[in-house]
Amino acid sequence: MKVPLRSWEPHAAAKRASTLAKIPPEWRLDPAQIEEAKRQRDITGPFIQRFLYPSETAIVTRDAVDLTNAVREGQLTAIQVTAAFCKTAAISHQINNCLLEIFFDQALERAQYLDEYFAEHGKTVGPLHGLPVSLKDQFHVKGVDTTMGYVGWIGSNLGITDPRDVHQVESQITSELLAAGAVLFCKTSVPQTLFFAETKNNIIGYTLNPQNRNLSCGGSSGGEGALQALGGSVLGLGTDIGGSVRIPAAFNGIFGLKPTPERLSYRNAANTNPGQNTYPSAVGLLSPTLGGLELGLRSILSTKPWTRDPAVAPIPFRQDELSAYRERADENGKARDSHTPLKLGVLWTDNTVGPHPPIIRGLHQVVNTLKAAGHKVVNWEPPSHAAARRIHLAFLKADGAHDIHSHLDLSGEPLIPDLREVLKLRQPYDLLDIQDMTIQGLEYEAAYSDYWNSTANDDGQIVDAVIMPAAPHAAVIPGKYYSTSYTSVLNLLNYSVAVIPVTKADKTVDVVDDSYEPLNEIDRKNWDAYDPEIYDGAPVGVQLVGRKFEEEKILGIAGVVMAALKTNCGV
Amino acid sequence: MKVPLRSWEPHAAAKRASTLAKIPPEWRLDPAQIEEAKRQRDITGPFIQRFLYPSETAIVTRDAVDLTNAVREGQLTAIQVTAAFCKTAAISHQINNCLLEIFFDQALERAQYLDEYFAEHGKTVGPLHGLPVSLKDQFHVKGVDTTMGYVGWIGSNLGITDPRDVHQVESQITSELLAAGAVLFCKTSVPQTLFFAETKNNIIGYTLNPQNRNLSCGGSSGGEGALQALGGSVLGLGTDIGGSVRIPAAFNGIFGLKPTPERLSYRNAANTNPGQNTYPSAVGLLSPTLGGLELGLRSILSTKPWTRDPAVAPIPFRQDELSAYRERADENGKARDSHTPLKLGVLWTDNTVGPHPPIIRGLHQVVNTLKAAGHKVVNWEPPSHAAARRIHLAFLKADGAHDIHSHLDLSGEPLIPDLREVLKLRQPYDLLDIQDMTIQGLEYEAAYSDYWNSTANDDGQIVDAVIMPAAPHAAVIPGKYYSTSYTSVLNLLNYSVAVIPVTKADKTVDVVDDSYEPLNEIDRKNWDAYDPEIYDGAPVGVQLVGRKFEEEKILGIAGVVMAALKTNCGV
Repeated sequence: MKVPLRSWEPHAAAKRASTLAKIPPEWRLDPAQIEEAKRQRDITGPFIQRFLYPSETAIVTRDAVDLTNAVREGQLTAIQVTAAFCKTAAISHQINNCLLEIFFDQALERAQYLDEYFAEHGKTVGPLHGLPVSLKDQFHVKGVDTTMGYVGWIGSNLGITDPRDVHQVESQITSELLAAGAVLFCKTSVPQTLFFAETKNNIIGYTLNPQNRNLSCGGSSGGEGALQALGGSVLGLGTDIGGSVRIPAAFNGIFGLKPTPERLSYRNAANTNPGQNTYPSAVGLLSPTLGGLELGLRSILSTKPWTRDPAVAPIPFRQDELSAYRERADENGKARDSHTPLKLGVLWTDNTVGPHPPIIRGLHQVVNTLKAAGHKVVNWEPPSHAAARRIHLAFLKADGAHDIHSHLDLSGEPLIPDLREVLKLRQPYDLLDIQDMTIQGLEYEAAYSDYWNSTANDDGQIVDAVIMPAAPHAAVIPGKYYSTSYTSVLNLLNYSVAVIPVTKADKTVDVVDDSYEPLNEIDRKNWDAYDPEIYDGAPVGVQLVGRKFEEEKILGIAGVVMAALKTNCGV
Repeated sequence: MKVPLRSWEPHAAAKRASTLAKIPPEWRLDPAQIEEAKRQRDITGPFIQRFLYPSETAIVTRDAVDLTNAVREGQLTAIQVTAAFCKTAAISHQINNCLLEIFFDQALERAQYLDEYFAEHGKTVGPLHGLPVSLKDQFHVKGVDTTMGYVGWIGSNLGITDPRDVHQVESQITSELLAAGAVLFCKTSVPQTLFFAETKNNIIGYTLNPQNRNLSCGGSSGGEGALQALGGSVLGLGTDIGGSVRIPAAFNGIFGLKPTPERLSYRNAANTNPGQNTYPSAVGLLSPTLGGLELGLRSILSTKPWTRDPAVAPIPFRQDELSAYRERADENGKARDSHTPLKLGVLWTDNTVGPHPPIIRGLHQVVNTLKAAGHKVVNWEPPSHAAARRIHLAFLKADGAHDIHSHLDLSGEPLIPDLREVLKLRQPYDLLDIQDMTIQGLEYEAAYSDYWNSTANDDGQIVDAVIMPAAPHAAVIPGKYYSTSYTSVLNLLNYSVAVIPVTKADKTVDVVDDSYEPLNEIDRKNWDAYDPEIYDGAPVGVQLVGRKFEEEKILGIAGVVMAALKTNCGV
């Protein structure tokens, strides 16, 4: 017997179809090509490039800095760059299901305007002139849906139904990207509710990891991570309240930056439960290169977001901070004799969920490389991350999922099965309990800061940054993400964090360690989920952690670490 | 029939007596002198100075900048300066009941240490070397009580009873003042609960306005304001969650600075309901001179508070900002031809409670002076301040006064009569209502910011700062403070605000305006409370308002306004 469609399903199906229909015929794959992709483990690089002309591959394999330079110097037009990324994104979506919205026609029109501007004035509109930038589907673009994965928002955004108000809002950071010269072209998929570290919703379904399709692309900025791994974008916006920029960055072998929340504007962007503002979500950036993150942050901050969004702190991009840290090492990442070497902490485990062998190896690779390059590395033994997880989770769950259910109810769609228990409608917390949790959070922050300062006790030098796993596993087998506490602790601390790619899981070296004694039931489940065969080839990224408002410092240090990894990766 | 003492009363009486007993015999007044003070309207200036030696008056009438310079140049010793302020504070307390704690012996010992340090090293400890600084009784000093006006905290702080923990805590900002070379010598009185704009508690009772003893000294940093008006301190710490720095500054004819809360450290200071951190209280400064505020802020920030308190934003003192604004005018406050004149907004009324005649005259005086000095002044018509008041009040009342009652219950003391209804124990708010209010607050902030930016629409220049009443009246007749909305709106906005003294109420010009039509019942009560005879001589201060994190800008502009007022006050 055929199960009848539920009332919301035709809306979702229509939206899926209309998004695909926005792909021009010449960029459409035939069913056989799509089937072939499904048989691949890794559809990045050579696989997806078979659908591109060499001239297009030549564009989408350049990085954001390189591309903006090329446009500024007249070597490439904005149209050429935009068309190449639109096509790559179109193919990415067909073979890896990562977009919720496509607006290539707007993008090409915009690119033409930028080329004409450049021809007429002999200069660019701004530092992102002609660069295609993708947006997590929380950011509003005029004339375009923002569904954020909710069926009930299809055809508008935030569930707005009055036709006079539909598609009228533009998020502040969208305006800032446009002011800097960017071309917006697509919006990337998210998990329903955003509170899930895989990417799955009732509109387009699941997004797999394009480098290892046994695994998840992560979440909640997961469509963004997958798109970039496929070469479909070199700069994109994500958001992060518990790891949602960092997890997909790590899982897809790219770079991610989660700033302190008051650094980039969230104004007029959609979000889950914006009334919970004690531990707010942060707007962040993803890019296949570190230079892309730098360019993105510098360009957005050059528009002075704090003059329009009072939630943003008035801190301009501090190039001097970035440079000061980068200058502590030479171009190979080696500590300069004339400078103090970097001092990094390393967290091997949070003592709650032990990392899988590929992650441990990744940490060792970074640590050994840094030591070989003359930097100091010390063990990081901070206040209990388990305590942080408990406090942070209380805030995410405080409203008893009332906000989420108000949006689900617009269409009648159900929670995805993974969230059915954890996000079912509940009684909100009592305010006095939340106020008590607020004090606990402030005390935790202060204790962590004290611990950080105490690292000067041995040699007079305070730790510059800390290396931590981004997750206890490389990517993750769908349904087996048991703890996001490696990332969420840093949301409780409002720290500045970059994710850098380090290595890939390798079944020949990352063997199962049978001697491991799990610490608890969750740890056992996580440990049991490690399978060298399935994980083989999954990217391993780690977090590089700075304190509040230390974004430039972290980018500076990330440059040193990447340079060292590049030259000493055989350590 | 004699009413028997309630159980908490002997504790309060003993504390009162022990504080007085800490005054050395040679600084004690006799009962006749105290009675004489009670018959005066104004006990500042010549009246209090009759109890000082000319050499002492010569010290306590100098300002903070002048005094630190004199000590740095060896013209005065820290001991001389400290002794003069301790004596003046001792007399202030005896004739105006403004201190909750006295520790002159610690202060003199500290001053001696500083003098020895200076003699030995030929340099100062820091920019506040030898300057006595008074503290609102929320800041912990080792070895000294913090009662914050609660009988239940007598003998310790925060109600801590374990003898091992008593008097062990030092607030971070206390440490910073000491690191900068300050001498701490007394703690100033507050209203019970801090949520009251007069100063009255069950330990020392009521603190009157020393310039007009018909009136209140304001609150909650009211003891601080009264002490400074009497010459007993030239720099002090206050806190402000609804006007508590600005109101006593305005009422006592001195300067006050309420920064954005993330500018100065609240770490390890006592507070009311710290679990309500959506609209936190801000640590601020009071001083009889603008230079005192500048010196205080610069000195504290020079210790980099953000490296120890993660709640503080990493923004050093921006002398360049301050100077850039001050340089827009000459030494008489006149706009320089070579610079853009300042553009100020003026809020004549919040359309809820109209200001009394002395305040209206004060505003006119500032506006006319600025216009005469070549600056621009435009009317300020922002989003409804009444809406801001409603949202802000909800957060202050959200916990149903549970925190306050937990501290009252330690001793069994009752709420002071003024607060018995408004702060009685209630059901806390529902969390979902508070989350909804959070969104309303964020939207209000954004709308206010948009309005501010819209001031460029006429001439391309955005308003630099706004002049507003600090209260609808000069000082206030005890029990007749009906609305603190002129100050509390700026807490909702987290703005940077200075209070500057402008004039004094004058019965010969500030006559009752019988034609005034009150806007509502509160406005009628406020209007009816104006009595030229009673108010005569009361200080009139106004607020100078900047946006978030614009403390240096506001100090810079305040300098221009004060220079203009000084030279053109006859306008």
